[in-house]
Amino acid sequence: MTILTITTDFGNLNGFVGTMKGVIYGIAPQVKIADITQEIPAQDIRTGAIALWRSAPYFPPGTVHVAVIDPGVGTTRRAIGAKLGDQYFILPDNGLITPMLEDAEQAGKEIVVVHLDKPQYWLENVYTTFHGRDIFAPSGAHLAAGVKLEDMGTIITDPVRLPLPKALKTETGYQANIMLIDVFGNCSTTLRVSQVPDLAKTTLKIAGQSIEGIVPSYGHRQIGDLVAVTDSEGFVEIAVVNGSAARAYGINLDDPVEVIFHD
Amino acid sequence: MTILTITTDFGNLNGFVGTMKGVIYGIAPQVKIADITQEIPAQDIRTGAIALWRSAPYFPPGTVHVAVIDPGVGTTRRAIGAKLGDQYFILPDNGLITPMLEDAEQAGKEIVVVHLDKPQYWLENVYTTFHGRDIFAPSGAHLAAGVKLEDMGTIITDPVRLPLPKALKTETGYQANIMLIDVFGNCSTTLRVSQVPDLAKTTLKIAGQSIEGIVPSYGHRQIGDLVAVTDSEGFVEIAVVNGSAARAYGINLDDPVEVIFHD
Amino acid sequence: MTILTITTDFGNLNGFVGTMKGVIYGIAPQVKIADITQEIPAQDIRTGAIALWRSAPYFPPGTVHVAVIDPGVGTTRRAIGAKLGDQYFILPDNGLITPMLEDAEQAGKEIVVVHLDKPQYWLENVYTTFHGRDIFAPSGAHLAAGVKLEDMGTIITDPVRLPLPKALKTETGYQANIMLIDVFGNCSTTLRVSQVPDLAKTTLKIAGQSIEGIVPSYGHRQIGDLVAVTDSEGFVEIAVVNGSAARAYGINLDDPVEVIFHD
Repeated sequence: MTILTITTDFGNLNGFVGTMKGVIYGIAPQVKIADITQEIPAQDIRTGAIALWRSAPYFPPGTVHVAVIDPGVGTTRRAIGAKLGDQYFILPDNGLITPMLEDAEQAGKEIVVVHLDKPQYWLENVYTTFHGRDIFAPSGAHLAAGVKLEDMGTIITDPVRLPLPKALKTETGYQANIMLIDVFGNCSTTLRVSQVPDLAKTTLKIAGQSIEGIVPSYGHRQIGDLVAVTDSEGFVEIAVVNGSAARAYGINLDDPVEVIFHD
Repeated sequence: MTILTITTDFGNLNGFVGTMKGVIYGIAPQVKIADITQEIPAQDIRTGAIALWRSAPYFPPGTVHVAVIDPGVGTTRRAIGAKLGDQYFILPDNGLITPMLEDAEQAGKEIVVVHLDKPQYWLENVYTTFHGRDIFAPSGAHLAAGVKLEDMGTIITDPVRLPLPKALKTETGYQANIMLIDVFGNCSTTLRVSQVPDLAKTTLKIAGQSIEGIVPSYGHRQIGDLVAVTDSEGFVEIAVVNGSAARAYGINLDDPVEVIFHD
Repeated sequence: MTILTITTDFGNLNGFVGTMKGVIYGIAPQVKIADITQEIPAQDIRTGAIALWRSAPYFPPGTVHVAVIDPGVGTTRRAIGAKLGDQYFILPDNGLITPMLEDAEQAGKEIVVVHLDKPQYWLENVYTTFHGRDIFAPSGAHLAAGVKLEDMGTIITDPVRLPLPKALKTETGYQANIMLIDVFGNCSTTLRVSQVPDLAKTTLKIAGQSIEGIVPSYGHRQIGDLVAVTDSEGFVEIAVVNGSAARAYGINLDDPVEVIFHD
């Protein structure tokens, strides 16, 4: 019983993801499909990559992750498949794979990346405007149905990589940025909690505000307070207790966060 | 083959519910997952409770309902599991269980509630900001996989209860309120049709309007008419035929509805 | 293993589709459910019909498609089931079936349409406001569970048909219209690419703009250009490369597109 996930910027309005599921069930009737999100902002490869990177590790070994944020559909950009440790990815070669690939490299996991260049694993008619349906869905389904990744294309070693923002060391701490704003308005930064020597002795400056100390949970401050907490992936998060930090303080993706360690 | 449902205020934007599904399939690969809704307004426990209460009874016996509207995540609020008749619920102890619990009590069904205090049924790392993934999803999955509820925690008898609005008897009828506004702008009230002695001889006053009689369906009035009908759960609903009563008359949640019985 | 799809205008806010899934799993526990879309604009039968028509053919033979865009719920409009070739449809008799039916007729496929008039295939209590739950979901589930369509109702030959816009031949080419606007703002027209004798020698006039030539993919023009391309179903589509034609040029559903063939 293989799990196949779908991550796109298609929304659900037009039924495009439903169509992909039809293709997948036709090829791999036993597969279980789980939506990760279809609501990535249109053509926002980085936000898609971060959502998939945060979700994928929680799926069981052997899961196939099909992700389609694909502004280059119909051009010469490659379709790729990858085995990163015990998880599989099927996606356009536009950098969407970057954070998962970097993690696999850092962890010394097995890495195989192929250019999906064998049309026998696609639908018979490939339209230039919907490779999600015609190439990615059937490729993911064949992989989930037991076809070997190495048989589905030509091995490559140069997948496109996205420059991902990272917290940079400064003299007094780190220069970080907002990496992800969630549905509650919580703002995850690029700073890992493991990069902070003393949570209590840290000041964060964001949006003209100064936050003293990083606390273990929202409950350590009062409702309405602007706080820095540990997010669910081990990064430092800026939040308003039972509110929206993004809305209350006008915080946007990529906004700078100055991190100062002190005595 | 057990069904597991998910109800949250997470939306689908960030893939949080996708991540929960990964956790669930990892523990209980045979389970079937059904989304009830991920679009409960942020931290609106009552709206979440009402949505789950309306949907849960239509699922087969043995279904596990995981619900996470959880403004108290990371504080000392308990995680609880409950057997209410032949349905199971896994949720934060913040009142979310109230309408299902009250119905089970009224119907004299078997009721078991446990404090989910055994970490062996959680993920190994529990972050303070995402118990949906780290506690509720794995607990629901273990339950669906066959672990006994009683083995997953300590029995309690004092789950937190939410004050739920109910129609109040008056001299001339009832004082009711708007309980639920659906996607079409139909407004369900707290008045049960079974509380009305004669549907035809009832006047409803709402938003400065007066509605004469409760009709069996929208089709009994003209397009654009403001009507009172029986909703799909046996409550009296205020609607505009083929339109939105909420938008046309500015009706909001909790707005008062005066119900007058007459000759 | 039968697939059952769901298409509605219910949204996911209130959990109505979740409730339908509960009903379906109760009757047909082995079925696999795939959402096509729950986000059809309220009571927009034509948009629902087009979404289903584009998605359904990609599902495996034997799939049951349950579709509920149903402004006439609770009136005398019939509930119908249909076998069109190797796919099944369960829906209100309000024209929602039209494009699938027309295609089946044109392709000479087997066509059986029944009025679903046997209450033993519905829920016991049928409310006048939620036939999606009480009639369509259980009917679809019984069909998916193996009941014969012919046993579920009385054969009819007069399902309601929707007038669907089609490209009309003119002296110089075609008079077409916008048929579908997708989440990216791409605007599919009613003109089939197969109706165009020479893609390069075609001019399209829309929203005060003139587009010269129909290109095979977005990549044939520059970012920001207004282009005419082949959409994923073989129709001519108006798009902005990596942008939204609908937003940039104020294009709406049904807007006229003048198509001129030239030397």
